[in-house]
Amino acid sequence: MAGDCELVVCTTCRLPGADPTAPRDGARLSDALLAQGLAHRRQECLSACANGCAVVFRGPGRWTYVQGRIDPDLHLDDLVTMYRAWEATPDGVVPWRSRPEVIRKNTIARIPPFDLPEQEP
Amino acid sequence: MAGDCELVVCTTCRLPGADPTAPRDGARLSDALLAQGLAHRRQECLSACANGCAVVFRGPGRWTYVQGRIDPDLHLDDLVTMYRAWEATPDGVVPWRSRPEVIRKNTIARIPPFDLPEQEP
Repeated sequence: MAGDCELVVCTTCRLPGADPTAPRDGARLSDALLAQGLAHRRQECLSACANGCAVVFRGPGRWTYVQGRIDPDLHLDDLVTMYRAWEATPDGVVPWRSRPEVIRKNTIARIPPFDLPEQEP
Repeated sequence: MAGDCELVVCTTCRLPGADPTAPRDGARLSDALLAQGLAHRRQECLSACANGCAVVFRGPGRWTYVQGRIDPDLHLDDLVTMYRAWEATPDGVVPWRSRPEVIRKNTIARIPPFDLPEQEP
């Protein structure tokens, strides 16, 4: 499964209150991840602008997570740790206690896998 | 493509400021959609609790949209209109001007299709 997993990084995100003339924080985050050897998809705008920097973890048969408020200067290790943990699960659900605080506090949304049995009305 | 499209509705969402003893607004939204004949997936918690009621539009080969602040008493027609418009596109991108205001103002996140060509670093 891990081979089909993907980290999507918004390259146009700015942190709240960022200098609008400074390089985009999302692009800096992407560059820092590449420097650490973490391959990912670069995407202009994930429409989560109020919660930058935003990223998505997704892959077939697993829960998708949209995460926000990732500061490339503060949370790079937390993001890499969480993505690797998510990637290592069979279904994308990392135990709550194992999630770094910035992840626990800034989950923007989660989306169930397509093949999850539906809940009856 | 439309046959593979899916609307996911959070059934545990509450509107901001909702009475905690009242029936869940997300469940009411789901019931109202069913009454209109719009089949969908019911899901307990999409982790978008600050922006209830939350829903997701998703399908293979198209952009996924996470939408919030859907009030079942105010926005049912807007949601149905938008979902049908999204479903009718080849890629999930509905022109901005065609989106109802509650949709334009409350997109929580969008996620690109897996097969979208990647943007180079």
